[in-house]
Amino acid sequence: MTVTTPRGFRAAGVAAGLKSSGAPDVALVVNDGPDAGVAAVFTGNRVKAAPVLWSQQVVRGGVVRAVVLNSGGANACTGPAGFQDTHATAEHTAATLTSSSPRRMLGAGEVAVCSTGLIGERLPMPALLAGVDAAVRGLSSDGGPAAAEAIMTTDTRPKTTVARGDGWTVGGMAKGAGMLAPAMATMLCVLTTDAVAGPDLLDAALRAATRVTLDRVDSDGCMSTNDTVLLLSSGASGVAPSEAELTAAVTATCHDLAQQLLADAEGATKQVTIDVVGAAAEDEAVEVGRAVARNNLVKTALFGNDPNWGRILAAVGTTAAAFDPDSVDVAVNGIWVCRSGAAAEDRSKVDLTGRDVTIRIDLHAGTAEATVWTNDLSHAYVHENSAYST
Amino acid sequence: MTVTTPRGFRAAGVAAGLKSSGAPDVALVVNDGPDAGVAAVFTGNRVKAAPVLWSQQVVRGGVVRAVVLNSGGANACTGPAGFQDTHATAEHTAATLTSSSPRRMLGAGEVAVCSTGLIGERLPMPALLAGVDAAVRGLSSDGGPAAAEAIMTTDTRPKTTVARGDGWTVGGMAKGAGMLAPAMATMLCVLTTDAVAGPDLLDAALRAATRVTLDRVDSDGCMSTNDTVLLLSSGASGVAPSEAELTAAVTATCHDLAQQLLADAEGATKQVTIDVVGAAAEDEAVEVGRAVARNNLVKTALFGNDPNWGRILAAVGTTAAAFDPDSVDVAVNGIWVCRSGAAAEDRSKVDLTGRDVTIRIDLHAGTAEATVWTNDLSHAYVHENSAYST
Repeated sequence: MTVTTPRGFRAAGVAAGLKSSGAPDVALVVNDGPDAGVAAVFTGNRVKAAPVLWSQQVVRGGVVRAVVLNSGGANACTGPAGFQDTHATAEHTAATLTSSSPRRMLGAGEVAVCSTGLIGERLPMPALLAGVDAAVRGLSSDGGPAAAEAIMTTDTRPKTTVARGDGWTVGGMAKGAGMLAPAMATMLCVLTTDAVAGPDLLDAALRAATRVTLDRVDSDGCMSTNDTVLLLSSGASGVAPSEAELTAAVTATCHDLAQQLLADAEGATKQVTIDVVGAAAEDEAVEVGRAVARNNLVKTALFGNDPNWGRILAAVGTTAAAFDPDSVDVAVNGIWVCRSGAAAEDRSKVDLTGRDVTIRIDLHAGTAEATVWTNDLSHAYVHENSAYST
Repeated sequence: MTVTTPRGFRAAGVAAGLKSSGAPDVALVVNDGPDAGVAAVFTGNRVKAAPVLWSQQVVRGGVVRAVVLNSGGANACTGPAGFQDTHATAEHTAATLTSSSPRRMLGAGEVAVCSTGLIGERLPMPALLAGVDAAVRGLSSDGGPAAAEAIMTTDTRPKTTVARGDGWTVGGMAKGAGMLAPAMATMLCVLTTDAVAGPDLLDAALRAATRVTLDRVDSDGCMSTNDTVLLLSSGASGVAPSEAELTAAVTATCHDLAQQLLADAEGATKQVTIDVVGAAAEDEAVEVGRAVARNNLVKTALFGNDPNWGRILAAVGTTAAAFDPDSVDVAVNGIWVCRSGAAAEDRSKVDLTGRDVTIRIDLHAGTAEATVWTNDLSHAYVHENSAYST
């Protein structure tokens, strides 16, 4: 139920020794066509890792036949030498794939590269290139699960998904457990589909999907240097869905993966859904949701099972969204603890013992709404991010 | 060495029972003149506590003869009834001061009010008003230390300061240990001076001072509903300093109090100075400093004594400031661990065992600079803010 579920794709995941643990760390996804369509979304961080700079160029070319991904090193902040490493990885992948299947010539410019791990260190290139060789040898049409495992960093489990259309399918895998933020920080995601879809359709579907799913996950407010979401199309089903159909399926896979990312976020004990309603505009609803999602005092209160609506209101007050402070309502897990900007139902009625928390904020300023997802801020988050360099 | 050091001021601090601990919780500062000048800076949060809304009106009147402050309750998000409580507190303070010293009539409109504590709950008015009575009885020209103690919440020690001019003085007290943020969240600060200074001069000096001190403290990125900084002038010295002299003295008191706030921030183990240099404009330097100060991954790394410059660069990359990612240098405690956007000196050379940490970021984009101060993110921060409602 992953990137190899749609027809036309093979994948592999191998251990190349980039991780000192010996866990799998190189993944390869190959599109055997007949099409080689691609759409992509990259990090909004201005400090972009070498693989992001490379893959942006590749995607501009409009054809991607393979994606090589590694954990165990982000290859970010590594200067021109780091970019050369990414280029060499793409060259080597293209050459090895061409030799393994001589009927099809592959160029480096058709190979996207994704990396994740510690920032600021060069990758061990001999080990990585040997890993690519092993991955090419290991390619198979049921290699998706192995690929999903090889891209894990502090993830405790692989994330995969599938959405089925009428005769066609979208599959996907993702990694990411920390640094999840506005533009999906340190989140790598590869989606595949055997639908027949031109570049404009792929792009429209992917952007519509990520805008309301992965882009609205804000686990710890930190934006990565390496975020990449790729959507590859093989056309192998021979079926051309409508834009609405493809968008719905891609959105379903992105939503499912986003929820899996939140469920596995570093040190989280709560999975928090922030529904902002009654906003004057959708972007204002998103701004309010993000402000609450990023507020450390709200996040620590949730960790402490405290329905501290005062901290929520204080976070809302830092935004530029239209609202009257004396007209805001806030519910936590269905209990309207704040009405018209002041205390309402007894906060002791709020049950925060479970993992899922829903905060509903009614701005009473219009009819627009948006949902943002986040986690609490726990001792385990501090521990994971202070005890280990990532 | 506090608000009663300048001539013309009396103060008191008493325990009125607002805090369940029985610690002092009502403070009063009275300006006996001859002048009753005032300047003020309030929270930028759009959700403003009742005492902020009240004091904004009072300050607009241009005359403040007394400030009554309470801990044990923020009187924020308490609706019209909460505003009435603040109004009643000012009325009661004015009436009690007038009866105690019948030669001078005081109006409620000359009494500023500050509150700090839990958001969303009404204040116990009988206890508070009885506390005001006790404070009026306790007023003395050496009551400053008691007042500074009565405004503490999670502070572990009172914060007071003084700066001396030629024949005149500025004194101050502040509280705040959490929610320190862009506009000085849950920070109450009263400054007094016996200098002769008109309203424009007071305002100019206070704004110039807070802009580069309290406004650049960003302990946890959370902005309070109650922040207030008041500067009162008695003119009792008979000396009229120049704008430069007054600004320098007010800046010195604000800087000293800001450093005391950081030193006592909730759960902090590090006091972090972020110097951003080589910026194209000062506000861009501030933006970069704030982005680093608020980044939870940077803050947890510092807690873990990890000079993780990659996380610093990733934070810089989220800003709109002018810089080339391949030209940024970063030093941690004097070791240039990053040059031209890539690894430089060995990070093991960085000694992070002490409490003071200096991060220096050279954007190489101009000649402007700014300093922002913050803390690390520790287990104790999570504990204090998850175990207790504040």
